[in-house]
Amino acid sequence: MLEVNQRSYRLPTSPTVVVCVDGCEPDYLAQSVATGHMPWLERTLAEGEGLIADCVVPSFTNPNNLSIVTGAPPSVHGICGNYLFDTASGTEVMMNDPKWLRAPTLLAALADAGKSVAVVTAKDKLRRLLGHGMKGICFSAEKSDEATAEENGIADVPAMVGMPVPSVYSAALSEFVFAAGVKLMEQRRPDVMYLSTTDYVQHKHAPGTEGANAFDAMMDSYLSRLHEMGCVIALTADHGMNAKVALDGRPDVIYLQDWCDAQLGPGAARVILPITDPYVVHHGALGSFATIYLPAGVEPRTVVGALQANPRMEAVLTREEAARRFELPADRIGDIVCVSGRFTVIGTSASRHDLSGLDAPLRSHGGISEQRVPLILNRKLPGLDTSRRLRNFDAFDLALNHAQ
Amino acid sequence: MLEVNQRSYRLPTSPTVVVCVDGCEPDYLAQSVATGHMPWLERTLAEGEGLIADCVVPSFTNPNNLSIVTGAPPSVHGICGNYLFDTASGTEVMMNDPKWLRAPTLLAALADAGKSVAVVTAKDKLRRLLGHGMKGICFSAEKSDEATAEENGIADVPAMVGMPVPSVYSAALSEFVFAAGVKLMEQRRPDVMYLSTTDYVQHKHAPGTEGANAFDAMMDSYLSRLHEMGCVIALTADHGMNAKVALDGRPDVIYLQDWCDAQLGPGAARVILPITDPYVVHHGALGSFATIYLPAGVEPRTVVGALQANPRMEAVLTREEAARRFELPADRIGDIVCVSGRFTVIGTSASRHDLSGLDAPLRSHGGISEQRVPLILNRKLPGLDTSRRLRNFDAFDLALNHAQ
Repeated sequence: MLEVNQRSYRLPTSPTVVVCVDGCEPDYLAQSVATGHMPWLERTLAEGEGLIADCVVPSFTNPNNLSIVTGAPPSVHGICGNYLFDTASGTEVMMNDPKWLRAPTLLAALADAGKSVAVVTAKDKLRRLLGHGMKGICFSAEKSDEATAEENGIADVPAMVGMPVPSVYSAALSEFVFAAGVKLMEQRRPDVMYLSTTDYVQHKHAPGTEGANAFDAMMDSYLSRLHEMGCVIALTADHGMNAKVALDGRPDVIYLQDWCDAQLGPGAARVILPITDPYVVHHGALGSFATIYLPAGVEPRTVVGALQANPRMEAVLTREEAARRFELPADRIGDIVCVSGRFTVIGTSASRHDLSGLDAPLRSHGGISEQRVPLILNRKLPGLDTSRRLRNFDAFDLALNHAQ
Repeated sequence: MLEVNQRSYRLPTSPTVVVCVDGCEPDYLAQSVATGHMPWLERTLAEGEGLIADCVVPSFTNPNNLSIVTGAPPSVHGICGNYLFDTASGTEVMMNDPKWLRAPTLLAALADAGKSVAVVTAKDKLRRLLGHGMKGICFSAEKSDEATAEENGIADVPAMVGMPVPSVYSAALSEFVFAAGVKLMEQRRPDVMYLSTTDYVQHKHAPGTEGANAFDAMMDSYLSRLHEMGCVIALTADHGMNAKVALDGRPDVIYLQDWCDAQLGPGAARVILPITDPYVVHHGALGSFATIYLPAGVEPRTVVGALQANPRMEAVLTREEAARRFELPADRIGDIVCVSGRFTVIGTSASRHDLSGLDAPLRSHGGISEQRVPLILNRKLPGLDTSRRLRNFDAFDLALNHAQ
């Protein structure tokens, strides 16, 4: 048994693959299965377990990937967004550096316990966090051509996969992750593998549409091959995805910095959008979660009350309330946390969002409305307490402790 | 000024058309506008008002149509479903008969005030309720060939419209409503017209898909013609629409009668699904709202508590709580009201639902998750208090009191 972050895990007896499908709202799978695009999944739902779980809010990529590999909420691992206001330095910084990580990963612990571990991510932004302290293979599709034996535990990845390095804005970037996973399993048969895709397709295509079904069909064929190789597979998602548009089809945005500037004076408060990262073309840095740092002397309750009056906000909470409800590190969020509703996103100032790259009606995430994710195992789970609230970060627990 | 159900209305100076688009989740319009399928609506949103309103829960057709034409919630007009357990007779009955109506309609009042009024519905089930006590034209597309001057204020409707009577399960049934509306406006120029479609298309096609966009394009062309004839148009919906499927693409159903039978004994409690009507092929009588009549001696609170533990339920309330929260007639609902979540519907017993007619993944309504509807006016609304909670049953208020 392995103890990581106050949870116990059995060591795998079969090769175990945990897949985090970025932005995989469960309805994607439902529509694809219903229309015959996922024959492997259809069979798996009958022969294994198809569960629904809650992801971490903010329903963004980094907090959830880190939750999955630590088996713990952000209050434990510390990664509560892609982007952070560092109060120590007074600057806004990316949270990609492992220095922000407050907990060991299960991947590192499994490697330390002598298991061979491989991690493949779509974008490089996650790679360093996921691979922190871990012996084994860890690379991104995005920079797969730069992978070296020293840094990544493997070299010449595109040749192994038999695919060129895809564009960071493409469905192929995720396909590369699955193709690499299948090749790794064929050639090296790691004991544990973690695959994490990108939501480029999900940001553009709604469940049941051609683009979404084609993505799911691609995924299904690779998962089927891993299944045939005897792998235990747990599939979950970092977050869901919803249309975020007004009646005119344009993004329905609450520009929160503009609102704060009008209420409290220009620049007095600082609005942070933790969705922000270097890849914002497909969502314009617009998500359904924001946090506000207030100037001294402003009572958070008053601002919370004013924002709660906006029916497009789903929840507006003080730091303490948000830290408790969403299990977030209180020292890394602002005085106020805002979560907008199913069809609404939060921006800073209208002038600071470049929406020119949006070539389809905005779909995004970050809120409570994107908290529902699939949690699918290709094995029955005898003895699982189905009345417990399942989380996406139970994926390794289910795969290691219940499925084998 | 006209007083109806404690609200005042100005008499129209321009021909006024209120359109209730059945199942028109706002995202349908957003996706259609974004992809160029609704040029009239795109212009109208810029030159008029595009608002979001809340419909009545249960988010079903009859309660909401009656709310729109009475300007009042079901606690006032009495129609709280398509279907009812009549405690007086101890039988389950349709609520199509005007004897269930407890309030006068604005349509009847406008006709009494000397205004010419025309009402066109898709299905005949609504016609008698909407036309109750009203002088003028009132017919359904479904039975348009049976309309007579005596009963409906008009005869030979298919010839006037230039379309054959469509199937009750078709997009053409709604197109007939719009086509009839345009012909009536051309030939008779009524002062007030109420058009109410059917959600056959919306039950099958998600926002942004070809079937949905084609429906919206059809609607747009007819609305554009009404607009060009100088009409004030208010467009709203009776309810939204959501996918209601599990991961395997099949309906995600809580069979509530089966649950009650297991908990309280077979047949001890009676579960009523107010979505039930004679036309259930496209949704299998599965919606997100149910009410339970408990046997004597069973404490509602205990049952409410047990049902609230189901994470697929969005709200489980006692009769009093539900009557207050949703403004329902307490004497026409059971001891408990259950509202299931965005992706879940409620059935009675598995054996009593025929799902063989579902040829597409289930989409349905009835819950709080389908409460958000469009409320669009083709005129600016000066002086409208936009901080008030707008309802779909404010459509006549906005059209008569603010738009002209």
